[in-house]
Amino acid sequence: MSGSTLGELFRVTNFGESHGPAIGCVIDGCPPGMALSETDIQPDLDRRRPGTSRHVTQRNEPDAVEILSGVYEGQTTGTPICLLIRNTDQRSKDYGNILDTFRPGHADYTYWRKYGLRDPRGGGRSSARLTAPMVAAGAVAKKWLHAQYGTTFTGWMSALGDIDIPFEGVEHIPNNPFFAANASLIARLEERMDELRKAGDSCGARIEVIAQHVPVGLGEPLFDKLDADIAYAMMGINAVKGVEIGAGFAAVRQLGSEHGDELTPQGFRSNNAGGVLGGITTGQDLRVAIAIKPTSSIRTPRASINRAGEPTVVETFGRHDPCVGIRATPIAEAMLALVLMDHALRHRAQCGDVTLPLPPIPAATP
Amino acid sequence: MSGSTLGELFRVTNFGESHGPAIGCVIDGCPPGMALSETDIQPDLDRRRPGTSRHVTQRNEPDAVEILSGVYEGQTTGTPICLLIRNTDQRSKDYGNILDTFRPGHADYTYWRKYGLRDPRGGGRSSARLTAPMVAAGAVAKKWLHAQYGTTFTGWMSALGDIDIPFEGVEHIPNNPFFAANASLIARLEERMDELRKAGDSCGARIEVIAQHVPVGLGEPLFDKLDADIAYAMMGINAVKGVEIGAGFAAVRQLGSEHGDELTPQGFRSNNAGGVLGGITTGQDLRVAIAIKPTSSIRTPRASINRAGEPTVVETFGRHDPCVGIRATPIAEAMLALVLMDHALRHRAQCGDVTLPLPPIPAATP
Amino acid sequence: MSGSTLGELFRVTNFGESHGPAIGCVIDGCPPGMALSETDIQPDLDRRRPGTSRHVTQRNEPDAVEILSGVYEGQTTGTPICLLIRNTDQRSKDYGNILDTFRPGHADYTYWRKYGLRDPRGGGRSSARLTAPMVAAGAVAKKWLHAQYGTTFTGWMSALGDIDIPFEGVEHIPNNPFFAANASLIARLEERMDELRKAGDSCGARIEVIAQHVPVGLGEPLFDKLDADIAYAMMGINAVKGVEIGAGFAAVRQLGSEHGDELTPQGFRSNNAGGVLGGITTGQDLRVAIAIKPTSSIRTPRASINRAGEPTVVETFGRHDPCVGIRATPIAEAMLALVLMDHALRHRAQCGDVTLPLPPIPAATP
Amino acid sequence: MSGSTLGELFRVTNFGESHGPAIGCVIDGCPPGMALSETDIQPDLDRRRPGTSRHVTQRNEPDAVEILSGVYEGQTTGTPICLLIRNTDQRSKDYGNILDTFRPGHADYTYWRKYGLRDPRGGGRSSARLTAPMVAAGAVAKKWLHAQYGTTFTGWMSALGDIDIPFEGVEHIPNNPFFAANASLIARLEERMDELRKAGDSCGARIEVIAQHVPVGLGEPLFDKLDADIAYAMMGINAVKGVEIGAGFAAVRQLGSEHGDELTPQGFRSNNAGGVLGGITTGQDLRVAIAIKPTSSIRTPRASINRAGEPTVVETFGRHDPCVGIRATPIAEAMLALVLMDHALRHRAQCGDVTLPLPPIPAATP
Repeated sequence: MSGSTLGELFRVTNFGESHGPAIGCVIDGCPPGMALSETDIQPDLDRRRPGTSRHVTQRNEPDAVEILSGVYEGQTTGTPICLLIRNTDQRSKDYGNILDTFRPGHADYTYWRKYGLRDPRGGGRSSARLTAPMVAAGAVAKKWLHAQYGTTFTGWMSALGDIDIPFEGVEHIPNNPFFAANASLIARLEERMDELRKAGDSCGARIEVIAQHVPVGLGEPLFDKLDADIAYAMMGINAVKGVEIGAGFAAVRQLGSEHGDELTPQGFRSNNAGGVLGGITTGQDLRVAIAIKPTSSIRTPRASINRAGEPTVVETFGRHDPCVGIRATPIAEAMLALVLMDHALRHRAQCGDVTLPLPPIPAATP
Repeated sequence: MSGSTLGELFRVTNFGESHGPAIGCVIDGCPPGMALSETDIQPDLDRRRPGTSRHVTQRNEPDAVEILSGVYEGQTTGTPICLLIRNTDQRSKDYGNILDTFRPGHADYTYWRKYGLRDPRGGGRSSARLTAPMVAAGAVAKKWLHAQYGTTFTGWMSALGDIDIPFEGVEHIPNNPFFAANASLIARLEERMDELRKAGDSCGARIEVIAQHVPVGLGEPLFDKLDADIAYAMMGINAVKGVEIGAGFAAVRQLGSEHGDELTPQGFRSNNAGGVLGGITTGQDLRVAIAIKPTSSIRTPRASINRAGEPTVVETFGRHDPCVGIRATPIAEAMLALVLMDHALRHRAQCGDVTLPLPPIPAATP
Repeated sequence: MSGSTLGELFRVTNFGESHGPAIGCVIDGCPPGMALSETDIQPDLDRRRPGTSRHVTQRNEPDAVEILSGVYEGQTTGTPICLLIRNTDQRSKDYGNILDTFRPGHADYTYWRKYGLRDPRGGGRSSARLTAPMVAAGAVAKKWLHAQYGTTFTGWMSALGDIDIPFEGVEHIPNNPFFAANASLIARLEERMDELRKAGDSCGARIEVIAQHVPVGLGEPLFDKLDADIAYAMMGINAVKGVEIGAGFAAVRQLGSEHGDELTPQGFRSNNAGGVLGGITTGQDLRVAIAIKPTSSIRTPRASINRAGEPTVVETFGRHDPCVGIRATPIAEAMLALVLMDHALRHRAQCGDVTLPLPPIPAATP
Repeated sequence: MSGSTLGELFRVTNFGESHGPAIGCVIDGCPPGMALSETDIQPDLDRRRPGTSRHVTQRNEPDAVEILSGVYEGQTTGTPICLLIRNTDQRSKDYGNILDTFRPGHADYTYWRKYGLRDPRGGGRSSARLTAPMVAAGAVAKKWLHAQYGTTFTGWMSALGDIDIPFEGVEHIPNNPFFAANASLIARLEERMDELRKAGDSCGARIEVIAQHVPVGLGEPLFDKLDADIAYAMMGINAVKGVEIGAGFAAVRQLGSEHGDELTPQGFRSNNAGGVLGGITTGQDLRVAIAIKPTSSIRTPRASINRAGEPTVVETFGRHDPCVGIRATPIAEAMLALVLMDHALRHRAQCGDVTLPLPPIPAATP
């Protein structure tokens, strides 16, 4: 109830602080009999890991995952899977100053007001480091969904600050540090990052994620609409300020005759819906976009107050990460996979017996 | 688990279909001892009600609410409050054609694929009519939050299709059928609606909602961030395709030196955060925006298929509602109130004992 | 969270007070496509209904159920099923005295202390009348489980106060007002009831319930063991003070060589487990027993205090019901059915793919 | 949903297998600002630990707990507390035989049927070893409840097989290996244990637990009655077959004039209710009793079948533990504390504002 558990049937309970002994999660409800080992999980963790390029934080964390339970002789047993990641880069440091002041754009002030105390080391619980266990859990969900339905997840950056990044092809995504589906703009993106670093400033980003080969019928009609659960999962990622499904905010200016996706015996003619109608998957690609705010920790001095309510100035020293959005792509993929996994189990619980008189399944078009 | 219950401590369970005998909800967890009668609820229902202007559906439903339980001698008792709204306008009609074809943009296809059958009368469970019980429940939450903290909720339309509607003043909102915070554009909006109706087409809308006088410290740090729960609640409203908190998608293009709201002893200097940092309220205004897609039921013929998978054409006859976004304003207010209410109770459950050494509470600035 | 919802996937939300306008429940998560009408539900309600013999309360309530949602053309649609029972026997009465004093054995004192106020009319929310919606919901669960697995539910009274009622045969249960599986003792039971009524006193009862033709594999291993959920559901019935599964408290005195049920290719040799091992069904009969305390409302004067903390005497006037356990049998059956239904859906959500290499399914023995 | 999480607001998620790398739990929702270290938890773990007398299993496990998160500078922060216990006694052993046969009285058969596979090492997930994390979590709950309300928890064994153990005084409980509140019978209990061990057999036990200085008003009226949640928590402990609250099954034979606890300005005159009326605490002692079945692993040969459905014989070799009930006392205390803790938070969420006009709080009598 304190919000550290995601999902209803495929439940992931997250624990840990940025600079505590360990972070991790417990997955309850994973179907039994799936082959699983650390090697299924580590690749996605490595994609999110800090220190992989000069554009992201240089914290040196191997983020090596250990499976503590729920797997016997290489197979899931249906019991809780505890995934543990030890924190290794907990440099001793004086946090007295951070403890006393509230960094603008950070959760310092709100944690202090909510709990009356807070762990200031590296942001404590509010650190984006806590997305690592979600990426790990997401890898388990991805594996199961792919085995069952062939579902795949692909994310990319479509804007870095004011630079729009046109989609050229998925093959480019793993070949640059930005997860850009583009090869021609990389030099410009790197240049922008360097400028921001020199200026002691930061910028936002726009990330897109799609799921393909999605089963039809996932999602609940009223509150737990699939798109509502996606919005919840995405907005819960650190620094996210906006979520769109399908046409998103562009739908405001669309006409009904343009927006409503027509159906043909060969499938839908368009995908303004983003793969969801009435909260339930259509079988088309699930299309999600998120807005990520600029990094709050910047070298530029900023006005703030201390715990006594007195004015003060906050500066972040040392290297900083000019765009936290860079590492958000694997996180967004993982969150989408977790939502879909949960709904796949929910759907077969209630509707496992449903058979349709005829099988006219429109293929998923664009 | 089939998604008809919203909230954890202030739980609203919604039931009903558009043309069944009744719709309604059960509120479990309302604090005892609050004065409550139908007259606290009816005004918000009347704001959402169909038939109030020529721009919205002409279905003639009084939407009169009846309290069936949980109130004794005018006070809440702490036990479940059942709110019932009888459906009165259930014109007998032949739904055979609707049952057999899938209207583009509607949930017809996905319901049929999920459940193997569906109630076609007026959209059944997928009808926006099911937001009426949420507006009713929201009125209960609004009343409690106002009594406890002075919290208020205000929503307005900020764009109708491609017409942006500048915010001129809250006093205009109740004086036009669009919930526009604007007096000068109303004639143009009415004209646009008439054009669309004549053309047999429809358009989207952008709605903004704010909560003011919000307690500090509401929200959970990881998954049940206040903004994540808001995104979930908003995306669950029929026809919503996007949600923004604070700066929203504009944050992508902001610099960190611009986005991060500075603190002073007099309060925050700006509100790009939209009243939430690290998932927890700052005490500033909560600022939310949503995108609503154009009405799917339009007179213009559209391609579709029937249950046998054969091509067909769908036309909606009779009057239609060219912008479903018009009635979304009171719904969005209600959803925001329900999320806040739930978190107010959650917060005091865990942190009811927290006392702060000093009370430097920054006033909520813009 | 205020505890008015039972179940995780087959969720029943109960509302109402004894003398309010109506009582009822909302069932969310019922599988679609099941034939359902009021006639499936009314018979179980009639078995629980007051006024059916001179040994139970004479309140004249038809307890006629109305289906408000979730059923279209006689079939469940997968959306919430609201079941409404109007209260018709709300005799106007002066409750001032009851409101001011705390009846021994009743919830008057605890409701007042918890909520600061209470609905005194007929016990308000604490009335056993609120079990009627559970019996109604249980009838839906029974129907589905029978259609899917052939599961049946049978309950009977095995002790009335100090009179043990030997099990002679299920055929006797519907033929006497006590739900006794016995024909020879009925006269003695009636005599005892008359004695108690004359003496202005009451007695307890022991009820047994079994489920037969139960699927193997239902229940979760750790907390939501099937027997744990049964214990929760049974102890939640008004006036229940004890719950046993299988051998129950007799297991304390058993030897391990006696208690552990041996397996043979033909099935289990005994059923001390009561159909559950490690929290999961074995396929044998589920065997449950509950203890019901004597009716608290008796004519004999009892010491109490009033809301001012002053001593007072409480007497219940008029007819009373000397054994509330009499009507508990259909309630216990319904609660067992609801627990089983929920776990049937939960099981197929997680383990829907499990196939066993060989099918050596021991038949359910005694 | 797979049942590895207990509680709604003070949520404990349990993970691990008997012979995996580690067992543990994550506590979400603990109030912030409570002093907490391993030394608060270890004493209760030591009371439950194997190997403490010759009457319990000789597995040599230090059960040393490590706090991985949620505590900063010795205080709870309000974020999840992960408690880890490494398994150290994982002797390499051939489990091939155990994997192939189903031990009577054990969960072998049901796990295999549910999941299609199982971890046979030491019972895997079904081992009573998984109660250790609950004892650890219970210690956290006990500490908070004691600090807030002075609540204390005391458990003892009241019967070992057919030997009733009269309550002589709480001071005896820590002075014998049985948790008996009795000094005179210890020799006889030890003798019985030796007899059973020699005979290769086992016996059951009856355990009682009370909570004292319990706040009034905890518990929900309908399903989540405090006693219902206690019954659920207790029946979920390995080997429990029955649960009683207050008078329990003795209530069947009581008269109403005897059972209903009278109130006086000095408090209740008796406590047949066991501290709960209408599902809500009265402020009297909470009184709970549980029945524990005899150890299933005995040296005596027993009939069973193997995975091919063929008859076989199961014998447990080596030392065994003739009464698993011996170590159940600290477990039952912990489960009671966890239920009470959860309801304490739930109560203040909904009823935090309730003030009573007068404070006539009857003292808790017997």
